[in-house]
Amino acid sequence: MIIIGEKINGSIPSVAHAIRTKNPRLIQDLAKKQAEAGAAFIDVCAAAPPETELETLRWLITAVQEAVDTPVAIDSPSAQTCVDAMPFCARPGLINSASMEIMEKMEIMEKMETEEEKQAGEKNRKENKSMKKSKADLIFPKIAGTSWECVALLCGNAALPMTAEKRLEIFDALMKKAAAYRVDPARIHIDPMVPALYTAEDGITPVLETMREIKRRCPEVRLTGGASNSSFNLPARRYINQGFILLAMGAGMDSAILDPLHKDTAGLISAAEALLGRDELCMGYIGAYRAGRF
Amino acid sequence: MIIIGEKINGSIPSVAHAIRTKNPRLIQDLAKKQAEAGAAFIDVCAAAPPETELETLRWLITAVQEAVDTPVAIDSPSAQTCVDAMPFCARPGLINSASMEIMEKMEIMEKMETEEEKQAGEKNRKENKSMKKSKADLIFPKIAGTSWECVALLCGNAALPMTAEKRLEIFDALMKKAAAYRVDPARIHIDPMVPALYTAEDGITPVLETMREIKRRCPEVRLTGGASNSSFNLPARRYINQGFILLAMGAGMDSAILDPLHKDTAGLISAAEALLGRDELCMGYIGAYRAGRF
Repeated sequence: MIIIGEKINGSIPSVAHAIRTKNPRLIQDLAKKQAEAGAAFIDVCAAAPPETELETLRWLITAVQEAVDTPVAIDSPSAQTCVDAMPFCARPGLINSASMEIMEKMEIMEKMETEEEKQAGEKNRKENKSMKKSKADLIFPKIAGTSWECVALLCGNAALPMTAEKRLEIFDALMKKAAAYRVDPARIHIDPMVPALYTAEDGITPVLETMREIKRRCPEVRLTGGASNSSFNLPARRYINQGFILLAMGAGMDSAILDPLHKDTAGLISAAEALLGRDELCMGYIGAYRAGRF
Repeated sequence: MIIIGEKINGSIPSVAHAIRTKNPRLIQDLAKKQAEAGAAFIDVCAAAPPETELETLRWLITAVQEAVDTPVAIDSPSAQTCVDAMPFCARPGLINSASMEIMEKMEIMEKMETEEEKQAGEKNRKENKSMKKSKADLIFPKIAGTSWECVALLCGNAALPMTAEKRLEIFDALMKKAAAYRVDPARIHIDPMVPALYTAEDGITPVLETMREIKRRCPEVRLTGGASNSSFNLPARRYINQGFILLAMGAGMDSAILDPLHKDTAGLISAAEALLGRDELCMGYIGAYRAGRF
């Protein structure tokens, strides 16, 4: 299981405070603890307005790299910002995230305030075919021929909820693009877009179906997911998050964005690895237990 | 999810003490708490020598029935004892368990002490075809035409570990027998025999494969499993047990023998039901949370 440690995120008050006061101690402590707990990537999300996001990412990435050698996951809603932050990284990491979403639309929309402005932007986009460039079109060429990895969301510009068929359609289009740009599928972490459970009629069964089918179509691609999306607005969220991770692992998920310091989650993931026959003689499970990870 | 509450078992010291001192208070308290926590059956296991087992079951079942209306699961390694205890039950319950295991062999073997006696019994069994009666042959006719349910283990007299193919072969034979005795598949809880993880090369993947294939072949049959078998001899057993339950639920398990009073387990099962789309608008999850079950 490839763990992407999620704890360095500007939407968390203590992290936001560290960013504001330019105090790297908390950031470096979180980086070290997550690396020790087995994170393969340290996710770094500024959660800042566009004017300061890139500069905040630079500061965060520098702080993390002074503390650990673990590669960084650059996490931004803007594909352009992800690409712009790549040179801050001392070694190849992970871009979080690409998708088939038409980039300009989103990035323009973000900057628009009134309904009129949004409608004008939408009209403009429709009329101008050359603007139809997806996030994948920006990111894939930048990581082709490197060791960078990349999360790719199964979303276009259509609204959720989506069926498994719709997700698989986007998956096929994404993989075609990856092939065209010569990006190795083994470096792509497909995120089938986990819905908020309380509004999802069939729960996450379309997500699980999508995962199983993707592993049939392309066994080497990674499958990832944001567990905490599913539990939005529900009580005792940890059970939903953990339940999601276990069910998704059973359907082939082999990468996840989560808190590697949560002991129960670490114990359950380690148990699932052993149960799924990926941990010979349970040595990994027993070792993690002895190391005090759960 | 059909929960079979496992807490009334003579192998648990406090329960053994209550049995020895003929004090029904603890038994009735466990019955009530498990029923309140949503157990569909209260499992009752004497864990006593053959001479006293039936009498102990009678006492336990009477105690449970004075406290709750929840049906009882009669749990004994002896199919004959299960059948003999049925008249103690005020309402139809669950037999735990039937199998394709040749009954006489096992029951005769139990009473034999020396190696010579065992060999003589074995020789006798082989020569006498009429003795080849499985546990299912004893139990199925007793529950045919009633509302009694029954756990059926996918084991014959062969030693574990078993492949998915071998388990499915036994499943087909069991279902043929069920059809011959006119037992409705919806009242049979198939237990594919969960191995101890630390000795199982592929983990529980053959069990999960068996479960998925059984639901394809016969969607109405119940799938059950003893979670705690998997964690035998491993540290922090709860993670393995919970991991098993979640992965098995993802593969179609809809019944389980477990401790319904364990809050984390209850939370995870409730979460899995919602995640698998079996809990409209998460009302069951939210209700169980509000009722303090987790």
